[in-house]
Order: sequence, then structure tokens, then C-alpha cells
Amino acid sequence: MEKAIPYKIYLEESELPKAWYNVKADMQVKPAPLLDPVTKKPITEEELSKVFCNELVKQELDETNAYIPIPEEILSFYKMYRPAPLVRAYCLEQKLKTPAKIYYKFEGNNTSGSHKLNSAIAQAYYAKKQGLKGVTTETGAGQWGTALSMACSYFGLDCKVFMVKVSYEQKPFRREVMRTYGASVTPSPSDKTEVGKKILSEHPGTSGSLGCAISEAVETASKLDGYRYVLGSVLNQVLLHQTIIGLETKTAMDKYGIKPDIIIGCAGGGSNLGGLISPFMGQKLRGEADYRFIAVEPESCPSLSRGKYVYDYCDTGRVCPLSKMYTLGSGFIPAPNHAGGLRYHGMSSTLSALYDQGYMEAVTVKQTEVFEAAEYFARIEGILPAPESSHAIKVAIDEAKKCIETGEEKTILFGLTGTGYFDMLAYEKFHDGNMVNYRPTDEEILNGLKNIPDVE
Amino acid sequence: MEKAIPYKIYLEESELPKAWYNVKADMQVKPAPLLDPVTKKPITEEELSKVFCNELVKQELDETNAYIPIPEEILSFYKMYRPAPLVRAYCLEQKLKTPAKIYYKFEGNNTSGSHKLNSAIAQAYYAKKQGLKGVTTETGAGQWGTALSMACSYFGLDCKVFMVKVSYEQKPFRREVMRTYGASVTPSPSDKTEVGKKILSEHPGTSGSLGCAISEAVETASKLDGYRYVLGSVLNQVLLHQTIIGLETKTAMDKYGIKPDIIIGCAGGGSNLGGLISPFMGQKLRGEADYRFIAVEPESCPSLSRGKYVYDYCDTGRVCPLSKMYTLGSGFIPAPNHAGGLRYHGMSSTLSALYDQGYMEAVTVKQTEVFEAAEYFARIEGILPAPESSHAIKVAIDEAKKCIETGEEKTILFGLTGTGYFDMLAYEKFHDGNMVNYRPTDEEILNGLKNIPDVE
Repeated sequence: MEKAIPYKIYLEESELPKAWYNVKADMQVKPAPLLDPVTKKPITEEELSKVFCNELVKQELDETNAYIPIPEEILSFYKMYRPAPLVRAYCLEQKLKTPAKIYYKFEGNNTSGSHKLNSAIAQAYYAKKQGLKGVTTETGAGQWGTALSMACSYFGLDCKVFMVKVSYEQKPFRREVMRTYGASVTPSPSDKTEVGKKILSEHPGTSGSLGCAISEAVETASKLDGYRYVLGSVLNQVLLHQTIIGLETKTAMDKYGIKPDIIIGCAGGGSNLGGLISPFMGQKLRGEADYRFIAVEPESCPSLSRGKYVYDYCDTGRVCPLSKMYTLGSGFIPAPNHAGGLRYHGMSSTLSALYDQGYMEAVTVKQTEVFEAAEYFARIEGILPAPESSHAIKVAIDEAKKCIETGEEKTILFGLTGTGYFDMLAYEKFHDGNMVNYRPTDEEILNGLKNIPDVE
Repeated sequence: MEKAIPYKIYLEESELPKAWYNVKADMQVKPAPLLDPVTKKPITEEELSKVFCNELVKQELDETNAYIPIPEEILSFYKMYRPAPLVRAYCLEQKLKTPAKIYYKFEGNNTSGSHKLNSAIAQAYYAKKQGLKGVTTETGAGQWGTALSMACSYFGLDCKVFMVKVSYEQKPFRREVMRTYGASVTPSPSDKTEVGKKILSEHPGTSGSLGCAISEAVETASKLDGYRYVLGSVLNQVLLHQTIIGLETKTAMDKYGIKPDIIIGCAGGGSNLGGLISPFMGQKLRGEADYRFIAVEPESCPSLSRGKYVYDYCDTGRVCPLSKMYTLGSGFIPAPNHAGGLRYHGMSSTLSALYDQGYMEAVTVKQTEVFEAAEYFARIEGILPAPESSHAIKVAIDEAKKCIETGEEKTILFGLTGTGYFDMLAYEKFHDGNMVNYRPTDEEILNGLKNIPDVE
């Protein structure tokens, strides 16, 4: 017998997870290792430590420890904005007249406006513990940069953010939030790095790209004493930190005797999706329970759905390690859609492996459908969702509608990763009927995959 | 013996308040009645009902019932974003090295970004119940307009917002949030009303004012069948709905055996301050407990601190009832500071009476000090506060610093009314050193008070 389910389930402090969950430990076939981009041999801990913090490199490579204790300092910070609520979408269910039960884990109730803070604080902590002076990173949409600036401010670390120039100019408010937290924000490409200068001289009017901003951030970290580069998605370490989302969710569901049938998340680099599903996936991998997992991608950037499972460059500048993943090719430039956080050519190697092994599904959705779902949800559930998160909303609603036809009382869980307060330009375009959908042609996809590296 | 206090106290659904608290019922000397602006006689329920919804008029005039049950439909909506957390500011205390214990009630975790939703949903509910088609209102900073558009969307009411033209142009994102919730947003002055046309012909280039927007909203409601005008602050009904803030706070504090010594809130029209302090004020009025209450005003708009306690017009167009209140005069134009929600010439008649009777203190703070406190708080507690809320933060920090000197372990409670995501232009000004302070001269204050109406 189910207990009465509150609108919002907040765990008690004593119920909060004390360790992250490393799903790789339960995978029989592990994700393929990262390769050195030059030698194409598996990259060593020592090599990785030149770019990333030591402890984070250990987490990146760890395939055996299922649980990694969360340090006290990080638990303290988590308490400032966690637990995130698990919300029963009663209003949405009523409006849809669906027999389905819909839940969402809402990660937007913090100033970064998204789940990104979960990993930012961990990465800043390990940088501080290693005695570093600061970190560098890139940001596109701005959620990651904001989260990292908050985390660095907390630990008194310097934070240098390279922000894609077009976002820097179009999202001045995001930039200002980062400045509020003491970060220096540089529009990329800049004349502060060699790679930036080179790009500026070759393309004087360029508005920048994530690939270029990554290269500038990596170069800056490598040249400064006591600095390392940090990244907000794709990496195993990031997925690991983000499992706080899924662990809290699972604890809350277990407490009330709820078992989800379908778990849905938007997928860009994979940080939120991996974080949400990992503890459930662990059960599936161990044969303890079964769930349907659905990764939702924008139709304009369908790495799982239409990409290839091969080794590829993680960045356009080709300085980072090679990763085996579903990819559209590091040269693939997704159309300028409004879910900046999902515009990445590749996918987390762990999620790629799980998808390849058949543990997970993927679907693509059109941008205008996503904003229709976003507005519908905002009016019914009150929360104004980020465009990224709205990809998951769209598919959750679709699944709930299927239950109307079949009469099944399925339990649907989705990740509501963040709020859309800084995305109102996109909403404006949608309201004014100026939003377009873009689906890359097969030829464009093949073109993007032309320059994947030759491995074995 | 105190129980261990969590970082954030969330009440259980069963602990949530089921009735609002009407502080007037416990006042021995009641606030002076509203007067008809023409006859200068106390306004009747019938007269008020031409402008406001019937049930809200009853609440406005009620001086005897201490508790007004909250209708089920409103309780349901409250559950979508309430309870709001009562946060123990452990990090702030540690940073300040104060023996004081600091708590804040955070009302920013909803899409309107502030406490305004608490009254918006109540007002929309009573409008719906009365069978109305829609409501009209004005908005300056945009928090109230956003909240009302959300509430109207929930109940399927039409919502017409007149937004001060300068805000309409400078805050396009706020406007877009309102459109997301289906509201029509008109820059004021507009050519849609007689009063708007008149003002436009007299001042072709005007960027509008709250006074003008109120007049346009009232005129529009009066001309349309099935419409009423609604207001987001100042009125008794609004204070009543906002007591959900104080009631939740008090329940949470009682649960953990906490008794605040000082309770601090920012004060514009008084909605948040009145809502937070009312249940505690009730105890003080009944002689059951004592508290220090501090209203924090911007130095540029010091109605309690430097205004006069007289009958005055509530709006610049002089169409609304006269209210006895602390006022700077309806002709007083506050300097364009960045706390739009506090730029009102008067103060709630109930709070004015309590201040006059010596139950409450008032202080003023400089704008730059407010933003220093805001940034300091953001970095330590994570939340990016609205400029309005930051007035309370500034004084809470001041009081906590006093405790360092005296060694007293005072318990300080303040209202954190909202988030500053739509105020980043103001933060930018602050970061760039372009923010100025403004203190009206005695002459300016006297000038503003020249045109107060002649009553008795």
C-alpha cells in the first residue's frame, strides 16, 4: 500500500546521500578508456593530472569502487541548496487526464539555476585541497560558468571563465551573475591566449564557439602556475558528482514505496541524465530491477540517435584526450538552437557504452515542440523551465499521453534540470512565431564524421 | 534545550497553515478607515466592490476575525511552491564571526521570483469565484505582474497588465515571462485608455510612472464587463494573504524552540514586512511575547522614516480611496533607485498605525550599502538576492555585527523576499562603480507633502 504522496518530497538532512555512486563499477563491459590524442594509447593518471586536479583524475579512471564518499565540506555546501525536491506533478496529471503518475526531480532552486552546481562545488573543493590558486573553464549558455563561479567564491579560488563571445554579448545578465561571484569573464576568442589570437587573426569577425573557448581555457590553465582546467559535463567525474540527483531521487521514492517505470532526461554531454539514472541503472545492471531509460536529444544535435560509436576528439581544438563515444564528429556545428547546454557533438563515454549495450533508449524532439511543452508545463506546474530541461518534459508528456490510450498507470520520472530565467530571448522568439526547427541532413552528419581520428 | 537546527527547515504538508492571520483583530487602536476621495467619508463595502472583488473587500474591511480560512483551491496552489524554507544562515554567521543566530525566510523559490505570488493566487481565486472574466493591474519592477499572470493562468482568467513603459523597455525578459503565462502586457502610458491618451498628448516622450499605470488599470477594469482591478501591496487584504510567510516561519521556529529577538523586513508598500511580522506582532499586541521589529526603507524613499502620518491619495491619478498612512505625498517622485518594489510614496495603513503606536522601528539604508550586502550575501549563502530583499540583509548583517561587540547571542530573523535574476542591470551598475545614492532634501520632502488632501 502506497503512502500518501506529498506534492513535494524533501528528504531530511539525515537521509541525504553521503557517497556518490560510480555506475562503472557495476558495468560488466566497461566504457573504453580515454586515449592520448597523439600516441593513441590509453592515457595515464600522470598525463591527465597535468590538465585536471589529481583527485578528480582518480575519480575519472576509477572502475572498481561503487561508492565514493562525499567529503564533509561538499556535504556542507550541498546543504545550502539541497535536498532538491522530488515533485509529484499532480496538476500536470490532472490537466492531461492521464492515469500515469508523473514525478520530476527539480534541480533549478539554486542561483546557478541548474544541476551544474553539484559538480562545480566538488571540482572546486578538490582544486582547493590540492593547494591550487584557481581554475579555468569555458561556458556557452552560462549555467556551468555561473555554477563554477559560485563554487570558487565559496572556497576562495580564482575562477577564469572563457565565455563564447556571442553568449557574452547576448547574455550580459549571466555574465553579471558570474561577476557577482567574483569570476573574471573573458569573451572568447580573446587576445589573452595564443589560440585565441590565432583564431582572431584568421577569422576577425567570429562570434566564437565552445570548441575555441575550451582551447583558450586549457591553454590558460597550462600556462599559469597553480591552475587546472575544469569541465562541466561529459567526463566520468562529472557524472559521478551528478549522481547526487539520482541518489536523492531514489531515496525519496523508496521512502514512499514508488517505483518508476520510465526515467527520462535531456542529453547534451550527459551530466544530468547520467546523474539521474545511475543508481537505477545500477539496479538494472545487477539484475535487481528493470526500468526504461530515455535520453532526449534535440533534433538538431542527435549524437546518440544518429551519431557513430567511435573514438573522437572531445574538443574542436583537439587538445583533450580521445574518447570512445557516440559522436557527430568534432567538426559538426549544430544549428544555433536555444538549448545551448545540449549543443555538444559527443556524449559521455559511460552513457555511450550503456546505450551501445542496449540499456537505454534515445529519442529526438523538435525545438518548437519543446517550447510548446515548456510553456504548457510552466502554466500548469508553475516552474518556468530551461529549454534544455524542456526536452525531458516534452517526452514525459508524450509518455503520459500514451497511458491515456492504453489505460496503463505507469510511473514516469523525469529530470527538471533548471530554470529558464536567462532564456527569455528564446521564449520571446517562440511567442513571436520566429522559432525554427532544424534537422541535419544525412550528408551533414556524414560530413561531420569525416574527420574522426584513425584509431586501430 | 534546543533541537539541532537543520540548514533549512521545510514544514511537512500537515503542518502548513490553513488560515491567514488578520492582525487588525488584535489591535486595540485600529488603523483609520479608507475614505471616499470625493466625499471624504469612510468608504462602504458597496463602493469598494465596484473596484475590487467582493470577497476581497470583505477581507479589506474585516477588523474582528483574527483567522480567515484559506480556501482549499488556494492551499492546493500553495503546495506547488510552498512551504518556503526557513534557512539558518550558518555560513553567514561563520563568516561574520558573530555570536548571533541568523535565520531567513526565503520566498524566492517560485517563478515569480518573490513573495508576490502568495496574494496573487488569492486575488485570482476570489475573482474566479465571483464569476469574473479577468483582472487588470499595473506593474513596475515586474514581480507583481509576473505573479498575477501565473495565478490567472492557473484559474483561466484573463490578465491585463499595464507595465511602466521604462520597465517594459528595460526589462523585456520580465515581460516575456508574463507572456509565457498568457497575460497581455501593455506599456504605460498607452493609447488604450482615456487617461493614457491624455498623458501621452501632454507629455509625448514620457517613460511612464506607477501612478499612471494604476490609473490605466483602474480605468480599464471599470470599463470592461466582468473585470476588477487588483493590487499587489499596501492593502489590508494583501497583508492578510502574505501572513502565510509569517505563519509558516512561526510554526517552523516553534517546532524547533527558536524565538527571534529581532525581526527585519524591507518596506515598500508593506506587503512582505506585514506578512512576515503579523503573527509575531499579534503576540506582542496581546502581551504574550516581545520582539523588535525593524522596517528597512531605501534612503531615497523613506515614507515611515521621514514621511507624515496623514490621509493621502494612494495613487497619482487620485482615483483610489484615501488612506491614513505614513506618506511622502502622492506627488513625491522617488529617485530612480534599483529597488523598484520599494519606490512607493506611502505605506500600508496597518503598518503605519503600528509604527505610529510604537510597535515597530524603521531605518533607512543607502543603495550602494544594500548592493554591497547583496553581493556579500550571494557569495556566502549562495542565493542571489533581489535589491528589495537586500535592504533587509544589510540591516540583519548590521545587527549581527553589533552582537560581536556586545557578545549577545541574539536571534535575528529577516525576510528574503526574492531573487535578483531580473535585476542584473543594477548589479552591473554596482560592479562598474556607476551606482549613486540619493537622499531627498527636507525641502523635497516638504514639497511632496504640499498636496495632501484636506481631511477634517
